[in-house]
Amino acid sequence: MSTPLRLGIAGLGTVGSSVLRLLAGNRSTASTRAGRPIVVTAVSARDRTRDRGVDLSEVAFHADPVDLARDPNVDVVVELIGGASGAAEAVVRAALDLGKPVVTANKALLARHGVELARLAEDRGVALAFEAAVAGGIPVIKTLKESLAGNRISRVYGILNGTCNYILTRMERESLTFDVCLRDAQALGYAEADPTFDVEGYDTAHKLSILASLAFGTEIDADAIYVEGISSITLADILAADELGYRIKLLGIARLTETGVEARVHPTMVPKSSAVARTDGVLNAVALDGDAVGEIVLVGPGAGGNATASSVIADVVDVARGGVIPAFGRPTAQLEPYVRAEIQTHTGGYYVRMLVYDRPGALAAIATRMAEHGISLESIVQRRRAPRQEAPTTAVPVDPQPLVMITYATRETAIRDALRLIEQDGHIASTPKLIRIEDL
Amino acid sequence: MSTPLRLGIAGLGTVGSSVLRLLAGNRSTASTRAGRPIVVTAVSARDRTRDRGVDLSEVAFHADPVDLARDPNVDVVVELIGGASGAAEAVVRAALDLGKPVVTANKALLARHGVELARLAEDRGVALAFEAAVAGGIPVIKTLKESLAGNRISRVYGILNGTCNYILTRMERESLTFDVCLRDAQALGYAEADPTFDVEGYDTAHKLSILASLAFGTEIDADAIYVEGISSITLADILAADELGYRIKLLGIARLTETGVEARVHPTMVPKSSAVARTDGVLNAVALDGDAVGEIVLVGPGAGGNATASSVIADVVDVARGGVIPAFGRPTAQLEPYVRAEIQTHTGGYYVRMLVYDRPGALAAIATRMAEHGISLESIVQRRRAPRQEAPTTAVPVDPQPLVMITYATRETAIRDALRLIEQDGHIASTPKLIRIEDL
Repeated sequence: MSTPLRLGIAGLGTVGSSVLRLLAGNRSTASTRAGRPIVVTAVSARDRTRDRGVDLSEVAFHADPVDLARDPNVDVVVELIGGASGAAEAVVRAALDLGKPVVTANKALLARHGVELARLAEDRGVALAFEAAVAGGIPVIKTLKESLAGNRISRVYGILNGTCNYILTRMERESLTFDVCLRDAQALGYAEADPTFDVEGYDTAHKLSILASLAFGTEIDADAIYVEGISSITLADILAADELGYRIKLLGIARLTETGVEARVHPTMVPKSSAVARTDGVLNAVALDGDAVGEIVLVGPGAGGNATASSVIADVVDVARGGVIPAFGRPTAQLEPYVRAEIQTHTGGYYVRMLVYDRPGALAAIATRMAEHGISLESIVQRRRAPRQEAPTTAVPVDPQPLVMITYATRETAIRDALRLIEQDGHIASTPKLIRIEDL
Repeated sequence: MSTPLRLGIAGLGTVGSSVLRLLAGNRSTASTRAGRPIVVTAVSARDRTRDRGVDLSEVAFHADPVDLARDPNVDVVVELIGGASGAAEAVVRAALDLGKPVVTANKALLARHGVELARLAEDRGVALAFEAAVAGGIPVIKTLKESLAGNRISRVYGILNGTCNYILTRMERESLTFDVCLRDAQALGYAEADPTFDVEGYDTAHKLSILASLAFGTEIDADAIYVEGISSITLADILAADELGYRIKLLGIARLTETGVEARVHPTMVPKSSAVARTDGVLNAVALDGDAVGEIVLVGPGAGGNATASSVIADVVDVARGGVIPAFGRPTAQLEPYVRAEIQTHTGGYYVRMLVYDRPGALAAIATRMAEHGISLESIVQRRRAPRQEAPTTAVPVDPQPLVMITYATRETAIRDALRLIEQDGHIASTPKLIRIEDL
């Protein structure tokens, strides 16, 4: 075997500790695969003394991660601190500046500074690798960069956030409310004390921005992604979806259209028969549509220390083998500017749920508004809440009744305009709920 | 861009023609990803004149593929002839001998001569790449060699033959017999005129032998794989499986056990909720169990010209980028000898279906034989063929009735011994049907 590859690991949280343990336990596996020994020579962490289950007595400790990057006994920096700036950004820049390859799991940093950091890595001729940044243990980055290199990718979509998928799965399986499931997710450590970042879709958007760049060869623009979270999803929506043959999943979807990249994160109605519909709990699933291969779906653990560490080590082994593939699959100079297709131009089916006052003419008025906007309905379901209730004999409003409609493909602007007018017409009790349907 | 990479393609059948078209149509994509132009400079095929939808007037034609390997304008040989020996073997050996990298889709050649060819490639310091040899467009080879490099793999299994999966899916969905579905598969071009190689499981065994070597770091021994095909599967089995919560799939399964590698290909009962159970038609699915990552499942097209060509081009782009990873993930000298765990030592659940003479004591005798061999039953289903039929009042045998049992985990030798004795006891009308259940 040739020279050892010496790692410096910045950040020893769940993933960092797993990387340490896996390299200790599986050293021969990773080293055999790499064709050379892989050793950890330095670490940096906030708490020096915590037990990570591995003997660190022979490993240098740096209070400042930038010092770890500068350590002459460190060949490669593994950044597992997290965050779009601060210490994470500093150590990555320092390492690349010194011509040291970087392996990172930091989606926020990449979504914000990815292209700039890729350019720096390119200037120094070293790798910037980030398999662990998207979908945990699932090798989606490598599949996009390498396995589908002969394909034009038309769409990438998937379940990229295990917290949201856990909540939606439990709501559906146990008929629980969002709030109850969120609290359980927090108790189990699947969701943070402040769950906004996960449940409002921002985490998914960061990951999607990276996938879109790799898929379409464009620069990253995390701000250009349309984002809706799952906190507005009710049990009524989930039950109505079930009845109509759908499940509701938080998807990140990026599609190449004639006007640019349409990238969106929102609760999505997916046919029960689709692979993403059947991806439950904290699993992630990513589907890649290529012109040659058709559709490939990758399913696996999207989070967790060991699964994420598996991806970190895969990147380290690639570095040890000596390959340097551009961070986003092509030189940064060849990345095209990101042209955003606005959500208003999105065309697809929609699920609409509204509470309608139960009086003559209401349904006709609603149907007329839809027709005026050229919207055809695939199905419509209205059931009285109390079964066997008699039809109202007077025009006096009773409790508003839920009305669920599925539209054929229509333009986002058309459905939004129609719903605004329906609301103004006064036949419905509150703002309609709109959930996009994805053709899978 | 730097020097072009010049390909010689040996074999212009469905896959070869797709490679030509994709490189012509998507040249910029593959070349951009590769960082250099990829061009086809020479081809070899039986029929020189057939139209492949691409202008070959500037491309050298070699009647003998070995001449293509020797062509000084060929940097890389793409072997798409097929077959475990003959022209395919000759062109691959010639190319490697000359120090030219080889990309091949030839599972039979690899199953037979893989390690030897890998050694030759290693001696010459060039790549021998074969993503397209297993599961068509699904990147399972790269995932095993690279993405899971930090994992010890405990099991690899999957649906690796689209022909068999098409037949089983149609039998189940449309309640058709094996023969009818096979004839349709032949009419659609999914099955050969002589379907033995596919339906008897040999194709799956070749692919599994390659996956097992990559997963466990062992030499290939295609002959060590236990093989049963699907031609004995009846509609009755499929319906009984359905009733018990299972589907029947032809799986290739390789598992690392204490006594060696257990590798087997056979019709398998899989829980309906599993990812492989829901992989229908000509799709393939491969699951990889690693100690760090847990389980990853890859689903996609396992055959077809374009999907397979996608994998060929991925390998070509890897070669163009200059990486040389050992063919089986580690140097051949580090591959361990293949130690075979015999099917007799297999332990798992079993589905047993037998036709029992309907007379007093038959069931008791059968249950006693099972108990004598330490076999516990998870479920047992006996239904008279004609519902509402009266219980027989005499001991005279009527038509034998089907009896279906699901066992808890038991050893293959135990169940086989028990069934042999049950057959000898004379209570059943024919040899029992045995289908293994896989814990997924």
